[in-house]
Amino acid sequence: MNNTLRTEALEGEVLYSHRVSYGETDCMGVLYYAEYLHIFERARNAFTHARGLSYKEVEERGIYLPVREALCRYRSPARYDDLLMVGCRVTRPRRASFTFSYRIFDEECVLLLAEGMSEHACTDARGKPVVAPDWFRRAFFPPA
Amino acid sequence: MNNTLRTEALEGEVLYSHRVSYGETDCMGVLYYAEYLHIFERARNAFTHARGLSYKEVEERGIYLPVREALCRYRSPARYDDLLMVGCRVTRPRRASFTFSYRIFDEECVLLLAEGMSEHACTDARGKPVVAPDWFRRAFFPPA
Amino acid sequence: MNNTLRTEALEGEVLYSHRVSYGETDCMGVLYYAEYLHIFERARNAFTHARGLSYKEVEERGIYLPVREALCRYRSPARYDDLLMVGCRVTRPRRASFTFSYRIFDEECVLLLAEGMSEHACTDARGKPVVAPDWFRRAFFPPA
Amino acid sequence: MNNTLRTEALEGEVLYSHRVSYGETDCMGVLYYAEYLHIFERARNAFTHARGLSYKEVEERGIYLPVREALCRYRSPARYDDLLMVGCRVTRPRRASFTFSYRIFDEECVLLLAEGMSEHACTDARGKPVVAPDWFRRAFFPPA
Repeated sequence: MNNTLRTEALEGEVLYSHRVSYGETDCMGVLYYAEYLHIFERARNAFTHARGLSYKEVEERGIYLPVREALCRYRSPARYDDLLMVGCRVTRPRRASFTFSYRIFDEECVLLLAEGMSEHACTDARGKPVVAPDWFRRAFFPPA
Repeated sequence: MNNTLRTEALEGEVLYSHRVSYGETDCMGVLYYAEYLHIFERARNAFTHARGLSYKEVEERGIYLPVREALCRYRSPARYDDLLMVGCRVTRPRRASFTFSYRIFDEECVLLLAEGMSEHACTDARGKPVVAPDWFRRAFFPPA
Repeated sequence: MNNTLRTEALEGEVLYSHRVSYGETDCMGVLYYAEYLHIFERARNAFTHARGLSYKEVEERGIYLPVREALCRYRSPARYDDLLMVGCRVTRPRRASFTFSYRIFDEECVLLLAEGMSEHACTDARGKPVVAPDWFRRAFFPPA
Repeated sequence: MNNTLRTEALEGEVLYSHRVSYGETDCMGVLYYAEYLHIFERARNAFTHARGLSYKEVEERGIYLPVREALCRYRSPARYDDLLMVGCRVTRPRRASFTFSYRIFDEECVLLLAEGMSEHACTDARGKPVVAPDWFRRAFFPPA
């Protein structure tokens, strides 16, 4: 369509596409800053489905992944009806926690609109930290 | 402040005030239509607190109040930083269900911006309909 | 897959599929009642795209469609990670307003989870009611 | 009421109280992680009102404050109907940008539930960075 280089996917990155709705925008005319965290959640859900799991199943196996920290850098605004391409991958696998990293691009995957991360603990149903089990590491973590 | 007649409160109506945030507006510059249902929820929570209860306690006593139907009529838009005055009362007490009715006014309680209702069933924790117990009727329902 | 009859699409109905996210659920474990109105918006956006337009273009042509009334009947709860099938169609075309009707089904299109409607005015940029222009009626309204 | 030391307010910190609604919780039973950014917005709006301004007026004077980065650290979950005490202050005043820092406490101001920040640019209506004008610095920034 044009000769602009598309941004390459990073290793292990899963793509999720998201259409900006009216309800996600604010009176400045752009995607509201808290909505990026909802989109991050949808992107890591797509990541989990791509790994052959669902977060629901992860919970049913007794592993919960509460968010310990979330960060977003806003580079260029998104607007109503924009189609966003969102990359999600695991970047810092540790014993009992890990990080999802996100990149939000425009429809052409050329312009980086935002990037962010969420750090998750692995806990049991009562919130006690647990070491990530092998089945979880194999599905979620990049090969060593 | 001025000689405009303020709207009178209706019998049993509890007032809740709400400041419109940026995140509640949309790119048309007004309060997004789904946000009214969030405000209705905050208004019926204020109603419940005014009756000496909290919805949390109602649930702890085994009564759940899932919404069966919700309706909102939008008369005049609300904008960022507007202070809204929201009236809430019980309008249709029945054996195992009832209705909350809402009126949203501007800060002066002169202009009616929206009105709506939510119909609630009384159920147990598993969602089975139950007759509203006496302590609940005394707190929530208007005197016969 | 099974012998249950799928629900048939109604005339002019456009289907939109929606995955329930964590952020759309509440502490009762189900899709929060205000989120249905966000899903309705996404469904009418899908309807508009299926008609070869986008709501952004409609606005750029000078037609705005503010919501006058919205209603939802909640029949059976939806839960995290459920895939919902949402039907949307125009049901009451009038001179300067019309109604979108919605049906939300489970993934198999067998169980009706919710149904609702939103009534829209046709206005200019300043909110003044206008008669729906021909290009709009041809795209949105069912044939007479 | 008890002998627990309340946390002291920091210099220039403005307090905002927020009741957690049903719609802000998720199916893990806690305040959803994106909702903290909505609460941050309400807290900086309370800060602005305490400084004798409103963000609406700031925009009307031609200064816009888009978010460049947002961060939240989640220490302990908040639940439905909890009353949160939120402290907000300006921490990094610069020429054309500044940072709001937030602390979210429980009702007693004893337990720190979350902390975060949002970095804002000062721009004109078209998004071009501008030096923060004197009236803005006097109202928002701590004395040197």
